[in-house]
Amino acid sequence: MIEATPPADALAAAERHLDSLRRNHTIDMTRGKPAPEQLDLSDELLANMSPGACVGEGGDYRNYGLGTGIPEAKRLMGAYLEMPPEHTIVAGNSSLTLMHDTLVGAVLAGVPGGAGPWGRDGAGVKFICPAPGYDRHFAICAKLGIEMLPVDMHADGPDMDAVEKLAGDDPSVKGMWCVPKYSNPTGAVYADAVVERLANMSCAAPDFRIMWDDAYAVHHLSDERPIVKHIFKACTAAGNGDRPYLFASTSKITYAGAGLAALAASPDNIADIARKMSFATIGPDKITQLRHVKFLGGMDGLAAHMEKHAALIRPKFAAAHGVLQARLGGTGMATWTAPKGGYFISADLEDGNAAAVVRLTGEAGVALVPAGSTFPYGRDPRDRNVRIAPTMPSVEEVTQAMEVFCACVQVVSLRRRVAAQC
Amino acid sequence: MIEATPPADALAAAERHLDSLRRNHTIDMTRGKPAPEQLDLSDELLANMSPGACVGEGGDYRNYGLGTGIPEAKRLMGAYLEMPPEHTIVAGNSSLTLMHDTLVGAVLAGVPGGAGPWGRDGAGVKFICPAPGYDRHFAICAKLGIEMLPVDMHADGPDMDAVEKLAGDDPSVKGMWCVPKYSNPTGAVYADAVVERLANMSCAAPDFRIMWDDAYAVHHLSDERPIVKHIFKACTAAGNGDRPYLFASTSKITYAGAGLAALAASPDNIADIARKMSFATIGPDKITQLRHVKFLGGMDGLAAHMEKHAALIRPKFAAAHGVLQARLGGTGMATWTAPKGGYFISADLEDGNAAAVVRLTGEAGVALVPAGSTFPYGRDPRDRNVRIAPTMPSVEEVTQAMEVFCACVQVVSLRRRVAAQC
Repeated sequence: MIEATPPADALAAAERHLDSLRRNHTIDMTRGKPAPEQLDLSDELLANMSPGACVGEGGDYRNYGLGTGIPEAKRLMGAYLEMPPEHTIVAGNSSLTLMHDTLVGAVLAGVPGGAGPWGRDGAGVKFICPAPGYDRHFAICAKLGIEMLPVDMHADGPDMDAVEKLAGDDPSVKGMWCVPKYSNPTGAVYADAVVERLANMSCAAPDFRIMWDDAYAVHHLSDERPIVKHIFKACTAAGNGDRPYLFASTSKITYAGAGLAALAASPDNIADIARKMSFATIGPDKITQLRHVKFLGGMDGLAAHMEKHAALIRPKFAAAHGVLQARLGGTGMATWTAPKGGYFISADLEDGNAAAVVRLTGEAGVALVPAGSTFPYGRDPRDRNVRIAPTMPSVEEVTQAMEVFCACVQVVSLRRRVAAQC
Repeated sequence: MIEATPPADALAAAERHLDSLRRNHTIDMTRGKPAPEQLDLSDELLANMSPGACVGEGGDYRNYGLGTGIPEAKRLMGAYLEMPPEHTIVAGNSSLTLMHDTLVGAVLAGVPGGAGPWGRDGAGVKFICPAPGYDRHFAICAKLGIEMLPVDMHADGPDMDAVEKLAGDDPSVKGMWCVPKYSNPTGAVYADAVVERLANMSCAAPDFRIMWDDAYAVHHLSDERPIVKHIFKACTAAGNGDRPYLFASTSKITYAGAGLAALAASPDNIADIARKMSFATIGPDKITQLRHVKFLGGMDGLAAHMEKHAALIRPKFAAAHGVLQARLGGTGMATWTAPKGGYFISADLEDGNAAAVVRLTGEAGVALVPAGSTFPYGRDPRDRNVRIAPTMPSVEEVTQAMEVFCACVQVVSLRRRVAAQC
């Protein structure tokens, strides 16, 4: 319909429509935050400990000690990552901290198999960054002075031709970020062939590391249960067992702000990280760890719990997709993902439109993460990607916010078409 | 009596006595751990939150956010450190982590007032380490490649002539460790004049930092309430407001393994640290923070709570001192501290005897921290200092352990005297 109308008239209509949608308060769709109803699902955590119940297999969890976590939590998070408990570290509430500290440790002191601290390598350190990706991963690299090398994300994982070339040619390319299942933001699920290539590829750096952020392993939105080939097993079979660090957290399982984080890896890697951690802490909050074990039980209890999350989240994704399809379907103004899990919809607009749309959307009362955030250095080379995070607002708010977003996409697209005519 | 007996006879008697004290199980006096009864004092923490009570001034504390802590906890820990809440960061359960990460941040990226990362300074980085001191402070320096410069600890703080000379002469001397009240292990309380000299001294490094670990500010054992001059106020008055970082934790107030840690400093320092932290975490465990605020209330509640700790700890120190006085008083074999607070008794044996005594004590079933631990690089130049941590065992066990320790001191001292006669 829009196409049949002269662009100037369509633009005027779209601008009137957007005006009618303007809001006095802001709907926040910037971050992948759980909604209060999701947090409520875990409120049993608040009161499932009592005096006398703080003694576990590792002793009195109120006291100092157990620097790499309590045995019970290692079994739980080891099961989540499909790794042996003894090669699993369970820490505080942030897997981002584990990732950050792991790279800090590599920069300052090196990792097993390497020639020493990454930072002392005169050539600098480079990291492969599939993009669009997670802005906080990229921010860690930026902070540490690690040069980021973007490679395209496809529906089945990163562009492996590009990854193999970068990793194979340059010994200063020391690692890579991966979100293997329901990737942030595209929802991509790594194909078996991608995992196999990551495990087997020849790396110029003997201490090349894959930062395998398995943040959404159990965060399904559909009835499908895609299985990603196990990176550690694949790497080990390829003789590269020290290559991957596996990360997870319960931030989007229990409480986003008060969950558990975990790291699993090869015995040598875990010994290295445990030693480095021992200088920084006498132990994590073991009471919170035991609360989680009591609440979640094991992987069966965890899976049942995730069904309740899915029931709350699915209608929000459906509402967002409904508006996208109704307003932008067939317009050529945008494509978007229909992820089977995770926390995001990734929309690609016409090239050059993302920054303008995010700005206009913000002015109309809907906060989106800044355009470019999903790319290294905040630079989307085509200025087209927008990450939509529909979990936190209510279904009604998601609908309203997506109406605003779609109206903004139309206005910006039509403005460009009108300008092109002049 | 020992002096009146021929040394060989006295030694034989002491060895028989030690044999009679040998134990089949180990009493652990290695670390300053609270006893279970002390942890019991805070068990209200386990159940003082409920669904619906997780919303505070900063929003829903179950969710992401508030990277530097909740406002309520900043007021609590700001009051503890006598610093404004807005210049106080409250983090997870480990102040050691805050100290470690602060120095890592300095090494990688520098601090306000400096010329850049400490680690890029060709001359290396050096730290002044009053000794005996806290082994985990020293371990952080060792890990980061920071050269440690020991200075003597006196009863009123470090040897300030030595400190001023080291800090004033060498721009690669970037900082210093201090435990200002009830210092680990000697129990020293910094005199006003020491604090004034620390605040006013001329430092060759413009970005010199004092790591002010106020771990025992409220951990009194006597009715005295010594007041240490406030380092931040003194430094600010001297025009050196960026000099100190103040650290504290509730590890020895509530749960050693599940408390809160805090860092306070000048506005510029806090902005710098908050920015650095923002790369590593989206926020601390805010539920645990709110639990603590609810439980402790404020400084009055905290002080009343500490009286209960003192009532449990005092008899253990008294038992230890009683045995020390009865067995070693007047022998010339040892001197020891009678701290008015904190967690340790520091014993100085005859030069050259500490390692042998700790080894012999361990063989007899009493574990002490390795000799030398209280000195940089684990090297006690006189091999005389032993740190005794009497809080964890029961009063009876403390008594038994100190009998073993004193017997070992006698045996080692007498062996040396006998050897000197030959």
